[in-house]
Amino acid sequence: MPLFTPIKTLLTASAVALLLSSPAAAEPDATAHVELRGTGDLGVVIERATGSVALVDTTEKTVLRHIEGFGDLSHASVKFTRDARHAFVFGRDGGLTRLDLLTGEIDGRIIQGGNSIGGAISQDGRFVAVGNYEPGGVKVFDVETMELVIDVPATYEKPDGTTDQAKVVGVVDVPGNIFVFSLFEAGEIWTLDMSTDEPELTKYRDVGSMPYDALITPNGRYYIAGLFGEDGMALLDLWHPENGVQRILPDYGRGEERLPVYKMPHLEGWAMAGDQAFFPAVGRNEVLVANTRDWSLTERIEVHGQPIFVMSRPDEQQVWVTFAHPLNDKVQVIDTRTLEVIETLSPGESILHKEFTPRGEHIWISARDSNQITVYDTRTFEVLATLPAESPSGIFFTHRAHRIGL
Amino acid sequence: MPLFTPIKTLLTASAVALLLSSPAAAEPDATAHVELRGTGDLGVVIERATGSVALVDTTEKTVLRHIEGFGDLSHASVKFTRDARHAFVFGRDGGLTRLDLLTGEIDGRIIQGGNSIGGAISQDGRFVAVGNYEPGGVKVFDVETMELVIDVPATYEKPDGTTDQAKVVGVVDVPGNIFVFSLFEAGEIWTLDMSTDEPELTKYRDVGSMPYDALITPNGRYYIAGLFGEDGMALLDLWHPENGVQRILPDYGRGEERLPVYKMPHLEGWAMAGDQAFFPAVGRNEVLVANTRDWSLTERIEVHGQPIFVMSRPDEQQVWVTFAHPLNDKVQVIDTRTLEVIETLSPGESILHKEFTPRGEHIWISARDSNQITVYDTRTFEVLATLPAESPSGIFFTHRAHRIGL
Repeated sequence: MPLFTPIKTLLTASAVALLLSSPAAAEPDATAHVELRGTGDLGVVIERATGSVALVDTTEKTVLRHIEGFGDLSHASVKFTRDARHAFVFGRDGGLTRLDLLTGEIDGRIIQGGNSIGGAISQDGRFVAVGNYEPGGVKVFDVETMELVIDVPATYEKPDGTTDQAKVVGVVDVPGNIFVFSLFEAGEIWTLDMSTDEPELTKYRDVGSMPYDALITPNGRYYIAGLFGEDGMALLDLWHPENGVQRILPDYGRGEERLPVYKMPHLEGWAMAGDQAFFPAVGRNEVLVANTRDWSLTERIEVHGQPIFVMSRPDEQQVWVTFAHPLNDKVQVIDTRTLEVIETLSPGESILHKEFTPRGEHIWISARDSNQITVYDTRTFEVLATLPAESPSGIFFTHRAHRIGL
Repeated sequence: MPLFTPIKTLLTASAVALLLSSPAAAEPDATAHVELRGTGDLGVVIERATGSVALVDTTEKTVLRHIEGFGDLSHASVKFTRDARHAFVFGRDGGLTRLDLLTGEIDGRIIQGGNSIGGAISQDGRFVAVGNYEPGGVKVFDVETMELVIDVPATYEKPDGTTDQAKVVGVVDVPGNIFVFSLFEAGEIWTLDMSTDEPELTKYRDVGSMPYDALITPNGRYYIAGLFGEDGMALLDLWHPENGVQRILPDYGRGEERLPVYKMPHLEGWAMAGDQAFFPAVGRNEVLVANTRDWSLTERIEVHGQPIFVMSRPDEQQVWVTFAHPLNDKVQVIDTRTLEVIETLSPGESILHKEFTPRGEHIWISARDSNQITVYDTRTFEVLATLPAESPSGIFFTHRAHRIGL
């Protein structure tokens, strides 16, 4: 399969990069400098202005240290290895950087593409996939060696018969050691099966115009892509791939009025609560509720602004919402039993992201322009801690290593 | 509240016990002996015959070491601290033992009761609760110091007006820093709210005759107790405690015929898949399927023997079933889409327990009389490893630290 020709030059490049930042943890005396500790209550916070990350402890609610050298971290994301020791940071500059959470040192960094928007780690923990805008495509690396395993260019055929590269968005891992992702210009969803030595690519064509982001349900069954070019969403039921991609929620999108959209929502933040799914309306100050049995729209909840991240507390009793500029100075909490907004919080200026502790007792919220992270008790809404950080954005805790699609 | 008088003598006892086995990890040179590693892919396997546990690595699929000194581990269970560094082992002899997974050493052990059947760690990670048969009741300890925080005797009033102590079963943690448990002889369910310095006890009376075990749904909403003395189950909706305890699944139990029951099933193994719940029939070679929206019985699936553990693969696409003596030499796999048995495996003699890796790619199964653990690929059913262990029973992986009720 020509799609899978390894790129030797890139292999060399990554090997060199590894030499330059050879694993600190491998040095015998490394353990002397670091504290022996469990990694279950660690996390990283992206500090976009300085290209650094803050290593945090969710038990003590403290920043352990700041680590630099990650390149351009505007719009960066993070995945954790299955042992929860390392974090892979996907940078906007195409950098793929591996951080050792125990030594606090970068033990691997390569520039794998021109413009990366995120990635995923395979179910078995062996592979890390990166989705790229420039050049469009997905590259899969070995988590241990960071060597290129496979390069999948996002080549698609245009109406005029010529071919081009598409931007890759919405890269997720699903059970069966499969990666799923969407091709923006192509309007296609592809799955890459890494379960055998002969990776297998499956393409779903004409899924809709310009998929801009996607999500996977917590059980890894439904892959749902939002469409920028039209209303509605594209749904792939991975339990029944033979049914192909279906269109759901025809009302979902900007609608006839073509409302001004300050920022397209992140679908990663999709929230499930029982058989209800909560998701951000596009261009409207609403959180929408769908019935996950037939994916019909059941409710529109009026909120403070245009929602960006809509996330469910692990016990599914609350949904927390962040908003687009210029109303991004508030966070609202919806009770999933009454579908009412029960709390409005002001954790700072330019709120970008939030993360629940694994069992949901606390939530961490980043406020970029306030240079701080606020930790709340999700039951009492009491502020438990305020931590300094350099223009903090994404917050990621290590329990994600053990969740499908996170 | 007289219920909450701390028992000074026990406090002293536990303090002494701690001195005898003072934390190895605290010694400055301890780190030199141990490998710096993440704790996300660690686990423990109970070795009941030798009162030891096997420390395992789910990435390498190996036993790292065997650790002794846990006392009587027949019917033992394990909970992990929120940093996934320590395991608390609940022994049949009333022993509560804390194992440091990184040093491989016991760094705390107390005999807290006469006969413990399990426990739970609070949502905030601060408290470990132990349920006891002898004397009946729940004791809550500080996870760090292992000192007694609160002692809750399971005192109940008998029909003749006298009081007695009940055996405590089905201890779980739920959101809000609450422990929930059942009183066997009393037919009561109690909740213990540890969210404030003034712990609050709530009692639900007349829930049914002889609750013998209980489970909590993954979101922490429904606490469901099986009844030994009558058919049906007792359900407490923790989102609506004002509704009190309701009776569900009137068919659930031994029925009119009073079938011979070789072993009461473990309800901890309750499996959810979408809005279906799979659970072990009592005394029948059946796995029952209920609709979680109204808790009605929808299906009876014929299986190899009397089911003991019915567990859902994390992606909810399969349910794996172990069986009671004398048919405990097989494991069966049910496809949740077709409700058909798709595989029957023979991992050894006297199969006691099983555990999925966090994202479900593998399952570990313990066969006591074969002195081995078998690791399967859950997609191909291929045997990936066979590991030696001394009469292995319970298998517990560290990702449980991050799940409600596990």
